[in-house]
Amino acid sequence: MLAGLDEIAETGRDAHRGGYSRHVWQAADLELRAWFVERAQRLGLDVETDRNGNVWAWWGTPGPDAVVTGSHLDSVPGGGAYDGPLGVVSALDAIARLQATGFTPSRPCAILVFAEEEGSRFGIACLGSRLMTGALGADRARALVDPDGVTLAEASARAGLDPAHLGTDREALDRIGLFVELHVEQGRGLIDLGHPVAVASSILAHGRWRLTVTGQGNHAGATLMADRRDPIVAAARAVLAVQDAASARPGTRATVGRMNIVPGGTNVIASSVQAWLDARAETDEETRALLGEITTRVDEAVAENGCSVAVVEESWAGAVHFDPALRDRFSAALGGVPALPTGAGHDAGVLAASVPSAMLFVRNPTGISHSPEEFASAEDCVQGVEALEKLLRSLL
Amino acid sequence: MLAGLDEIAETGRDAHRGGYSRHVWQAADLELRAWFVERAQRLGLDVETDRNGNVWAWWGTPGPDAVVTGSHLDSVPGGGAYDGPLGVVSALDAIARLQATGFTPSRPCAILVFAEEEGSRFGIACLGSRLMTGALGADRARALVDPDGVTLAEASARAGLDPAHLGTDREALDRIGLFVELHVEQGRGLIDLGHPVAVASSILAHGRWRLTVTGQGNHAGATLMADRRDPIVAAARAVLAVQDAASARPGTRATVGRMNIVPGGTNVIASSVQAWLDARAETDEETRALLGEITTRVDEAVAENGCSVAVVEESWAGAVHFDPALRDRFSAALGGVPALPTGAGHDAGVLAASVPSAMLFVRNPTGISHSPEEFASAEDCVQGVEALEKLLRSLL
Repeated sequence: MLAGLDEIAETGRDAHRGGYSRHVWQAADLELRAWFVERAQRLGLDVETDRNGNVWAWWGTPGPDAVVTGSHLDSVPGGGAYDGPLGVVSALDAIARLQATGFTPSRPCAILVFAEEEGSRFGIACLGSRLMTGALGADRARALVDPDGVTLAEASARAGLDPAHLGTDREALDRIGLFVELHVEQGRGLIDLGHPVAVASSILAHGRWRLTVTGQGNHAGATLMADRRDPIVAAARAVLAVQDAASARPGTRATVGRMNIVPGGTNVIASSVQAWLDARAETDEETRALLGEITTRVDEAVAENGCSVAVVEESWAGAVHFDPALRDRFSAALGGVPALPTGAGHDAGVLAASVPSAMLFVRNPTGISHSPEEFASAEDCVQGVEALEKLLRSLL
Repeated sequence: MLAGLDEIAETGRDAHRGGYSRHVWQAADLELRAWFVERAQRLGLDVETDRNGNVWAWWGTPGPDAVVTGSHLDSVPGGGAYDGPLGVVSALDAIARLQATGFTPSRPCAILVFAEEEGSRFGIACLGSRLMTGALGADRARALVDPDGVTLAEASARAGLDPAHLGTDREALDRIGLFVELHVEQGRGLIDLGHPVAVASSILAHGRWRLTVTGQGNHAGATLMADRRDPIVAAARAVLAVQDAASARPGTRATVGRMNIVPGGTNVIASSVQAWLDARAETDEETRALLGEITTRVDEAVAENGCSVAVVEESWAGAVHFDPALRDRFSAALGGVPALPTGAGHDAGVLAASVPSAMLFVRNPTGISHSPEEFASAEDCVQGVEALEKLLRSLL
């Protein structure tokens, strides 16, 4: 493991779920931000937080046409050690290596740490980059609520931001000449290719929807099976409908990973169930078609026992195709490493609509991610740092 | 609504779930206990808390062969206003009516308020009566843990009890000559019979089991559908297996009303799911047979996508047949009211194994219970009080 990952290995551990739960502006995230500031300052970088809570560490004078690299420090609930932090630590290490060889950049350079990439606290992934680019409106963002009922406006204010200043940040965006994000691979693409590192070609289209299934709460012992309108039974049918719809369409993915059962008593037939749907496909059209089929199947499924369902879109991100010229240039500069698509969303994908963006993936020997078992070997992580160093050297 | 229910109508309201969440030794429960003490003392009753946290209010000198009536004040999460409190308020009102007519009891009499009847905090229903009778061992009880990780030993100590003294309470039990619990009906039995009040004939056998379904946590976007071992999909199949098994056996009931998804992220394939099963049938044998069929079906269901399941029994209560002579005597004393079985568990059912016990049910015009919609008309509640008053008058 890289030394930087070792330094934060105890921060935000989740004793209940295993792995890490590091959510924006909560204790672990604040600790990680302080750690990053200290680490960046040790390299002589100038640190600033922008109005959306993203942290910048500048090597030399901030300015336009900057080469910016970075990732995020937050995690999914019970996530792994690499998703996000690997890109931040690799950026710090790559700049340290450049500095150690006496290299002086000829254009501005910064490390950028995005806020709430996973969307684990406020429900919208890539929150920091979406706010910066305007993909998410400030009014909608301020009104987002975490599971404890705290609004994003309140949480950001407690973290020292001015909620009135959240939103599109052209000034910050205009300084980025090029963005490159290094990330652990989250699938099995590199395992069989025999390469430790790849460049990204594309990101699947991706949306999140909240399904609210409503039935009739009642007594688990006194209510005959035939008299029930049990929303957990309806939600179970809906989960299987989601699974069937995605399995029937090659390449598409659909997941229910989170549910909220109301009231949630052992001896109580529930009155309602919220289930969150994550659906992805190669194109926007395929993803919309998948959603259409899922909602049709779910409507039928929940009606079977007299329940109803409402579907609300929580977020949408169209398919991303990274700049082909940049992708090919980076692949060549790294000795012809492969170009891989990914099913995972990233801040680099959000930025790609506004500025030239690219990604590097580091091999994941099991393909497991968003889990405590997520892994990359120390050797492969070093290869990732060396690749990033090589790119920065050629760009700066 | 009876005045007593009005007095506690704002205590323990659950803004999120609707209805009431009143769990043992938490703020709302402590407030209800204080209210009961004040109400009992206003009638000149002497209040004491036994070593298991059950509250007794004595009319006259405590002693053996007492006529004891009461119920509980705790609720399921998001429960209704009547389940439990109706029996306590009716007991207070019945004694007040007897006192108002100058009646003097010729044998000891008490109101008894049981702790944690619903099992909503520590998972075991009828906790107070099971501890008192020894149906639940003190060591096992002390080690029970609430959702916040607080043990019953710690929680009872904070409430002023000595956890070392939890457990079988022969002294308390020996004072009870006869126990009668008035309760809102939790099914539709009285609706068509045209009676506001019934006596209880029997309670279904009832058990609770915790099912832990284990799969493989992973990334919701990067993991192909065919590569998944998703425990939510397996749990959904298990929920439908539970539903199918109970629906195929006339009179049996089986419910999953509570689930815990780990880690519970929208963009995360879960690694494990806990689901709680509540299963009931007329006899112990039928309930065990139902459980056997459920576990067979669930084993098959979760294996379909490479998951596994472990089943742990959390509680068991055999079928209860209330004393037929007492049942018939009470029915006759009330002018020939019907005798009804119930699918709901009650402290009176636990006591029935140790002392002569009976129950009165008050009509529920929709049959809905364990829900904010639970209801009994003011007229029927008064009929319940009058029935209880009549029985106490004949017994005392």
